[in-house]
Amino acid sequence: MKKLWQKDKYELDPDVEAFETEEDLIMDQKLVKYDCLGSLAHAKMLKKIGIISSQELAEIKKGINEILELDNQNKFILEKGEEDVHTKIENYLTDKYGQAGGKIHTARSRNDQVLTAIRLYCNENLEQIEIEIFALIENFQKFSKNYGSILMPGYTHMQKAMPSTIALWTDSFMESLKDDLLVLKTAYKLNNQSPLGSGAGYGAPIELDREYTKNLLGFGKVQQTTYCQNSRGKIEASVVSSLISILQTINKFASDVMLFTTSEFDFFEVSDQVTTGSSIMPQKKNVDIGELLRSKVHLVLGNYTQIVSLSSNLVSGYNRDFQDTKKPLIESFEITQSCLKVTKILLENLIPNKQKLEDSMTAELYQAEKALELVIKGMSFREAYQKIGMEVNKNAK
Amino acid sequence: MKKLWQKDKYELDPDVEAFETEEDLIMDQKLVKYDCLGSLAHAKMLKKIGIISSQELAEIKKGINEILELDNQNKFILEKGEEDVHTKIENYLTDKYGQAGGKIHTARSRNDQVLTAIRLYCNENLEQIEIEIFALIENFQKFSKNYGSILMPGYTHMQKAMPSTIALWTDSFMESLKDDLLVLKTAYKLNNQSPLGSGAGYGAPIELDREYTKNLLGFGKVQQTTYCQNSRGKIEASVVSSLISILQTINKFASDVMLFTTSEFDFFEVSDQVTTGSSIMPQKKNVDIGELLRSKVHLVLGNYTQIVSLSSNLVSGYNRDFQDTKKPLIESFEITQSCLKVTKILLENLIPNKQKLEDSMTAELYQAEKALELVIKGMSFREAYQKIGMEVNKNAK
Amino acid sequence: MKKLWQKDKYELDPDVEAFETEEDLIMDQKLVKYDCLGSLAHAKMLKKIGIISSQELAEIKKGINEILELDNQNKFILEKGEEDVHTKIENYLTDKYGQAGGKIHTARSRNDQVLTAIRLYCNENLEQIEIEIFALIENFQKFSKNYGSILMPGYTHMQKAMPSTIALWTDSFMESLKDDLLVLKTAYKLNNQSPLGSGAGYGAPIELDREYTKNLLGFGKVQQTTYCQNSRGKIEASVVSSLISILQTINKFASDVMLFTTSEFDFFEVSDQVTTGSSIMPQKKNVDIGELLRSKVHLVLGNYTQIVSLSSNLVSGYNRDFQDTKKPLIESFEITQSCLKVTKILLENLIPNKQKLEDSMTAELYQAEKALELVIKGMSFREAYQKIGMEVNKNAK
Amino acid sequence: MKKLWQKDKYELDPDVEAFETEEDLIMDQKLVKYDCLGSLAHAKMLKKIGIISSQELAEIKKGINEILELDNQNKFILEKGEEDVHTKIENYLTDKYGQAGGKIHTARSRNDQVLTAIRLYCNENLEQIEIEIFALIENFQKFSKNYGSILMPGYTHMQKAMPSTIALWTDSFMESLKDDLLVLKTAYKLNNQSPLGSGAGYGAPIELDREYTKNLLGFGKVQQTTYCQNSRGKIEASVVSSLISILQTINKFASDVMLFTTSEFDFFEVSDQVTTGSSIMPQKKNVDIGELLRSKVHLVLGNYTQIVSLSSNLVSGYNRDFQDTKKPLIESFEITQSCLKVTKILLENLIPNKQKLEDSMTAELYQAEKALELVIKGMSFREAYQKIGMEVNKNAK
Repeated sequence: MKKLWQKDKYELDPDVEAFETEEDLIMDQKLVKYDCLGSLAHAKMLKKIGIISSQELAEIKKGINEILELDNQNKFILEKGEEDVHTKIENYLTDKYGQAGGKIHTARSRNDQVLTAIRLYCNENLEQIEIEIFALIENFQKFSKNYGSILMPGYTHMQKAMPSTIALWTDSFMESLKDDLLVLKTAYKLNNQSPLGSGAGYGAPIELDREYTKNLLGFGKVQQTTYCQNSRGKIEASVVSSLISILQTINKFASDVMLFTTSEFDFFEVSDQVTTGSSIMPQKKNVDIGELLRSKVHLVLGNYTQIVSLSSNLVSGYNRDFQDTKKPLIESFEITQSCLKVTKILLENLIPNKQKLEDSMTAELYQAEKALELVIKGMSFREAYQKIGMEVNKNAK
Repeated sequence: MKKLWQKDKYELDPDVEAFETEEDLIMDQKLVKYDCLGSLAHAKMLKKIGIISSQELAEIKKGINEILELDNQNKFILEKGEEDVHTKIENYLTDKYGQAGGKIHTARSRNDQVLTAIRLYCNENLEQIEIEIFALIENFQKFSKNYGSILMPGYTHMQKAMPSTIALWTDSFMESLKDDLLVLKTAYKLNNQSPLGSGAGYGAPIELDREYTKNLLGFGKVQQTTYCQNSRGKIEASVVSSLISILQTINKFASDVMLFTTSEFDFFEVSDQVTTGSSIMPQKKNVDIGELLRSKVHLVLGNYTQIVSLSSNLVSGYNRDFQDTKKPLIESFEITQSCLKVTKILLENLIPNKQKLEDSMTAELYQAEKALELVIKGMSFREAYQKIGMEVNKNAK
Repeated sequence: MKKLWQKDKYELDPDVEAFETEEDLIMDQKLVKYDCLGSLAHAKMLKKIGIISSQELAEIKKGINEILELDNQNKFILEKGEEDVHTKIENYLTDKYGQAGGKIHTARSRNDQVLTAIRLYCNENLEQIEIEIFALIENFQKFSKNYGSILMPGYTHMQKAMPSTIALWTDSFMESLKDDLLVLKTAYKLNNQSPLGSGAGYGAPIELDREYTKNLLGFGKVQQTTYCQNSRGKIEASVVSSLISILQTINKFASDVMLFTTSEFDFFEVSDQVTTGSSIMPQKKNVDIGELLRSKVHLVLGNYTQIVSLSSNLVSGYNRDFQDTKKPLIESFEITQSCLKVTKILLENLIPNKQKLEDSMTAELYQAEKALELVIKGMSFREAYQKIGMEVNKNAK
Repeated sequence: MKKLWQKDKYELDPDVEAFETEEDLIMDQKLVKYDCLGSLAHAKMLKKIGIISSQELAEIKKGINEILELDNQNKFILEKGEEDVHTKIENYLTDKYGQAGGKIHTARSRNDQVLTAIRLYCNENLEQIEIEIFALIENFQKFSKNYGSILMPGYTHMQKAMPSTIALWTDSFMESLKDDLLVLKTAYKLNNQSPLGSGAGYGAPIELDREYTKNLLGFGKVQQTTYCQNSRGKIEASVVSSLISILQTINKFASDVMLFTTSEFDFFEVSDQVTTGSSIMPQKKNVDIGELLRSKVHLVLGNYTQIVSLSSNLVSGYNRDFQDTKKPLIESFEITQSCLKVTKILLENLIPNKQKLEDSMTAELYQAEKALELVIKGMSFREAYQKIGMEVNKNAK
């Protein structure tokens, strides 16, 4: 496959080529749309500053639209031997529109190009996640409205501690998700900077209109030239840490569901259509969905580790190590999105076992209350605590 | 040492006690001040709602002030055998002011108490870091003002790529620090929630005035009761990820300094007072400071891993596992603060080697420019690229 | 698709099903062969203890061989809606051979079945990696034989320190790889335990011959029943940490190559067929291969984090969270194998620049030697160090 | 404080000095003994090859013994302003024995010196841990002997699955610990290489007898010169991953204890002397020890991340980044050792609640057995599974 930088005869070792591109092409496939958008903005800007003609821009537009359409139909497929999505798009344009395609890369580097595509991808997905969080909060609200007043034990150290309610429990997740929105918004703001026009990280020898492309692509600001590449691994890390925050919320919920649906606790029932069976034990009804929701924060923690670790100890400017941040980034998005969707389903299929919850509200949960009653009658708290504690010990014997 | 929960005779196994408290006391020592502030706010609230008298509040105030003064003089020292800072403070008050001290823990749990102290600690340190970042940005500005116009090669793949300047280079760090401020601010906002009054995570059987203590302590909002404990490990993670962001910026700068001060590059000189020597090679002048700045993002990445990993797969409510988030949290702050200070010193002692930088501006850096000149004359970029590339190849032979 | 545990009508929510299986099927596709081998051993054992007839075993054998052949031709493809490889194989056997297929799962759980497949996968791949390490060591030996006597500077703190040779440099990698073999061997030994017959982790109500299947599959020992599932995440972690060790060796080599091929150092040349160009700078020749080798240890570190983190805080017995260890495990193998292959290629295309290396052997490298000469003449080392050091300082002025 | 490399007047910036040494001195304090042993071996070797006299060696020996004695009494204290343990020891010798002390550093670098001390530290601690694992295995054996025959439910997906016994449960931990011993032994073997004599990583200009010092220090082999520094971060990683393996075993045990001591499960009782109370709820008896054991694998996972991440992307030879591996390494040892000790105590204070365990052996645990009975009567397993499953469903209605 023709490479953009190929001058002479082609000779890259095929094993090296596979090593450098195979995994990456899978990620690039998901970036076709975003690279098209970035390329179109760049072409419009080249027209504006007089590098390409209206005619050439029209051809490029046409070509880009064709690619977008093909991509929509899953027909613009990156195949082994291709270098990356950028090359494939430029080659398509050149093959079809000749001269015009040959001009699209003027004053652009794949370094700013791929970053533009990634940023657009992140923006869109962060917006999508925001909507999904809103939907999940609504579901918790509904759950709380239906069952909030039911009493349940509050635990500390996994031991019964104080009386609680389903409302207190579900509210904690709603509040947690609201905090997650805050973190998400900051990640969005960080990500929402236009790298287009920064070239290889040192600008271009001709005057580009970076404000113009920034506006075309809807970015919030133009990112400083050299910082574009120097922010690689850093903005991705902020984005992924915002996803970890969401998955921590989900992990807590899933951990509770797993405990509260054991036959020993039996506080909640999960309906059949979200449980699975065992291949060997005919009686089993497993809440696998809770287990697989629980595991995901760990996967994204590992992705975060990958991003921060691989992008450290590297000098300024583009280093190809950055290519390996694409996969942990994109996979973290995909994981988070499916978790949000599935948590919603789990919640919709979760039914409190009222009788069991009622039975679980045993006397020990009210000891702190008893101590406080003595306090209100004038005893110091520490004395009241001692008094109640001694009684508990006596009764335990 | 007397425990708050000790009713009968004391019998905790000494090895277990050491395991549970020894490391933790070192962290608690750093929280004395913050626990005093939290305790005072709680006492004022207890007075407001009629649990303690003016006289008792006055005694508690006096006691707290004594502790703050002792702590200031490093004389309020947590020793082996003590359980934690909260117990020591309550015991001090009870020993000295009897009844009043015995009342301070009314409707409070160590669960909300320690979290209050940690939040106050974080708030203060996040504010401090913000100031240090401003100072560092200023230093970069000064550096840029002095040397910004000097040309330097811009690198990609560690190879000379395009002409750059010291201004472009330093601006990238300033921009990076500005982004870090944004992340920091969000961490602050998340952290700035008052857990005081949430008790063990399920509230108290009497009506507390949480708005009042929130205002006394300067928090931005009252945190939902059950979410207080459920946010442990989560808000800490957001805080620490904001510190990682800062350390990524510093890592990049330090990595550059290490490369650019090799004798082979020799772009910068570091003055003697920040370099060290070798014990065996008399000629060595090492920029250890750059190496030790470079290593720190990795340490805090490990701390982040600890926090997220240990607080996952845990059910709602307080779990003592959370105790182990204190150390990675506090150490991350200490590391970041010393790095900001030392980066500033390194920058103040960094002098560009103008001659060497000038010499390094070799012809290869201007090839993209040459190609663009052909473009301006009407050639398509890809053709121009081919043409220049062929010439370079020919000359290389 | 029919599930093994499906009794009544099928009703698993399709989003839940996708969430639980989609990613996993990609991994399971790589386990077809190993699950066939495990299933065959199990069937033979069932025959031996009288659960199935010779006729039934023959049919199962035939079926398994058909599947192996289909898999070889990439025609036994797991598709969306299928639950896992185990179900597909059992369904294939049942559809084709009825009764016999229906008996294969007797006294087996998917819990021991999947683990058996994973262990066989690991064993085969660990053996393969061992061979690749031997090959790489040989390449380093050849390199050392060709160029070992060439002098090169030895660095500390990235500064020239003492005279070294290419032999010292390459020997360090050979030694490192030998240590990696040691770690790999232990991982192999840990992994080489037969979980087959442990069922869901609590054995089966009938007497199985676990020694027999262990021998058939070539495992070193039978693993204790309950430990089989309790070792999940643990043995995988040991295996992956052995791969990290290898990638640390490669990371060091790649880091050196990246530095030593900068135009400023210029100690080595990398031949064209393993370098790539820039899309914008016609003169560039980038050693991307070094960068992408360098990044891989970080990816596998993240995978290790995933495995250890997700398998912790879980109670004894199978938890479906374990399913998510498959991907980081398998990907770590694939990464390590391609890195070993590509490192070999890089080494074969690395040529020392003798002239440049010779020129770099400057006087400062010999200062420690000078000091030692004074020591041999009777001066104490610390005095000699002072004396030489002062002279260096004087000359520097 | 005088530095070894200090030639002229001293001028290291005090903030830089604090940054570079403060944390490190705490670690170095733990290495006094090991640096003494390494220094003594080096001195003996210098005598053997004729660099120092018998008289000088005698003085050095005397000095080293004095230091060891002081260290034993906690009187050889590293204080702020000192550079490291190596400098303090050399300064002590020089101050007290003049010339002899000035000669001890001949043909040695702090690079091989600190590594020697660390390796000796690791060897001793790995041996200690081995003994502690043996002791813990013995305790599990005793527990199994006392209670092994008691039935308990076996869980999968946190749901009752099959009948199990306390013996099966405890055996799983014993087997796990035996595997840990295997990993530990390999870590020991890797670590058991003598770096002494490798100098700064490029040997010394005079012929040293590295075999001799290796034997004196009890190392298994002499480590290749340049590999000594290149193995930094790598051997530490292997050592720490072996500790993670142990802590994974403990994490599983602690997770079980936490679940099985909830009032809902109530399978085990933990005696008062290892539980703690609540500051606010007089009735609470918490198994904090289980929570704090559970959390530790995460801490050491973070330490591992630190070590691997910070030592990557660094070129060959000593880089001071390595200094920051000392703390995660040493702390991982301390954590593991205290966990082993405390797990033993927990186990000694764990009493099965026979009645509760008996009651928990409900009918659902025997469904797989029932299906197998049908199999033995000739039904295929999958049919039998369907039949039993349908009955369970019917009864559930």
